[in-house]
Amino acid sequence: MSASPVTVLGLGPMGQALASAFLAAGHPTTVWNRTPGRAGRLLEHGAVEAPTAAEAIAAGGLVVVCVLDYEAVRAVVEPNAAALKGRTLVNLTAGTPDDARATARWAGEHGVDYLDGAIMVPTYLIGGPATLVLHSGPADIFEAHRGTLAAIGGTCAHLGTDPGRAAAHDVALLDVFWTALTGVVHAFALAGAEGVTATDLAPYAKGVAGLLPDVIDAFAAKIDAREYPADGSNLRSAAAIMSHVLDASRTRGIDSSVISAAYEVARRGMDAGYADDSYAHIAELLPGTAPHPGA
Amino acid sequence: MSASPVTVLGLGPMGQALASAFLAAGHPTTVWNRTPGRAGRLLEHGAVEAPTAAEAIAAGGLVVVCVLDYEAVRAVVEPNAAALKGRTLVNLTAGTPDDARATARWAGEHGVDYLDGAIMVPTYLIGGPATLVLHSGPADIFEAHRGTLAAIGGTCAHLGTDPGRAAAHDVALLDVFWTALTGVVHAFALAGAEGVTATDLAPYAKGVAGLLPDVIDAFAAKIDAREYPADGSNLRSAAAIMSHVLDASRTRGIDSSVISAAYEVARRGMDAGYADDSYAHIAELLPGTAPHPGA
Repeated sequence: MSASPVTVLGLGPMGQALASAFLAAGHPTTVWNRTPGRAGRLLEHGAVEAPTAAEAIAAGGLVVVCVLDYEAVRAVVEPNAAALKGRTLVNLTAGTPDDARATARWAGEHGVDYLDGAIMVPTYLIGGPATLVLHSGPADIFEAHRGTLAAIGGTCAHLGTDPGRAAAHDVALLDVFWTALTGVVHAFALAGAEGVTATDLAPYAKGVAGLLPDVIDAFAAKIDAREYPADGSNLRSAAAIMSHVLDASRTRGIDSSVISAAYEVARRGMDAGYADDSYAHIAELLPGTAPHPGA
Repeated sequence: MSASPVTVLGLGPMGQALASAFLAAGHPTTVWNRTPGRAGRLLEHGAVEAPTAAEAIAAGGLVVVCVLDYEAVRAVVEPNAAALKGRTLVNLTAGTPDDARATARWAGEHGVDYLDGAIMVPTYLIGGPATLVLHSGPADIFEAHRGTLAAIGGTCAHLGTDPGRAAAHDVALLDVFWTALTGVVHAFALAGAEGVTATDLAPYAKGVAGLLPDVIDAFAAKIDAREYPADGSNLRSAAAIMSHVLDASRTRGIDSSVISAAYEVARRGMDAGYADDSYAHIAELLPGTAPHPGA
């Protein structure tokens, strides 16, 4: 049995990586990009470049879209509702859960089967065993295309029927990653101001990163149980530590806006009576207390 | 040869753990706490509780102090300068590099040999192989007491002669840890608002934590070289992702003050012309741009 055809809409770095992976797995692959001429190396590997999105959609079986944002998704799919009708659209563009749900509604209204996926790895891992792609939407649609989506590599997981569920994971995990890296870069700046090079600090910073998985599990259990025993480290001590970091940063004239915001949240947690609880209790403080509504 | 005597000043949870570790390694251990009656189980294991700090100092060889903060350190050591004269004081209290340097100056002025250490693990790991304690101060003083300090367990490292160096590592690593955990807790709140439980998200969050060590090494190399090639992920895309996280948080009424502060820093990096560089370039933006001077 020959591999089923795929259309890839969008040839940014991720779209190109996806098209390469489909080609490598033997899928006849049609590609399209708003600005033509981006298919270069893909053509050498057998891709066909369509002059319009409608023609690309008509040529393929499964339609995969991966563009800059959901505004770009709408600009591609809305004028092509007729071509998409009766087909399956897999949207791997990064966005918010509500973006995903709105696109799913649009698809439902136009007779388009829809999966919303989140690619959790950088482009260079696509096609390899470390790839992680999370999908959400109707289970039968996912099952029908699981074999084709497997070409993207690694783990291809179906998280549930809520089309926003993959994006919810995505945005939460990006929150973890970029907040953590903000801490890493700030720590390098702070250490640097104290005469400690980044490469001197790095082995210890990696040790700290290695402590996170156990804390993640412990915090998750507390949050889901809505019970927050301190287990040796409470919010009061976390706030005191953040205050140390803040002082040390300010002493060296280093921007402390991020740790300052974290400290303020911890302080509000103390005001809320969580001082002797695990820092995880903050998860209950954050909803409904947004100081920047609609900003 | 019998193990040399040790005095532990301060019997908070960490001071108690330290005294336990010295006792377990066979060191005659004298303990003192500002509020008496905290030595309970330690006495059963052979500790001697001294009624005053001066008597505790006079009884011991090496003097270890581990109290709430450097203000508490000063309250213990300054009235006991005479008792400390000619002895070695190892200060394992958490504080800023300048705190450490000021205490080292005070010690020098009063004829006290001084090491400033940072305990990088929670109390329950003290005495075990996973312990990490960083020391700074005169190398000969460290070498003279290395054997005794080894009782604290695990890795006992001397980082250099600047007495602030251990505290500089400490504060930077706490910065990494607590900023990262702030991201974790926020992510759990955000996922929860989207119907994703913390335990559902946790395995993926641990996967994200597992990505950090490679990025830490890559960022450290760029920062020390002061060259910031994007290597596939630039500041512009980081800022766009933070903006997604911010939007998703605000949509659900979740406090977004921390990721908002991180986004603002990224935006200033774009203004500074770093958009096509690695996010690591932010490390050069942070010094000298503190928006909260002296607050």
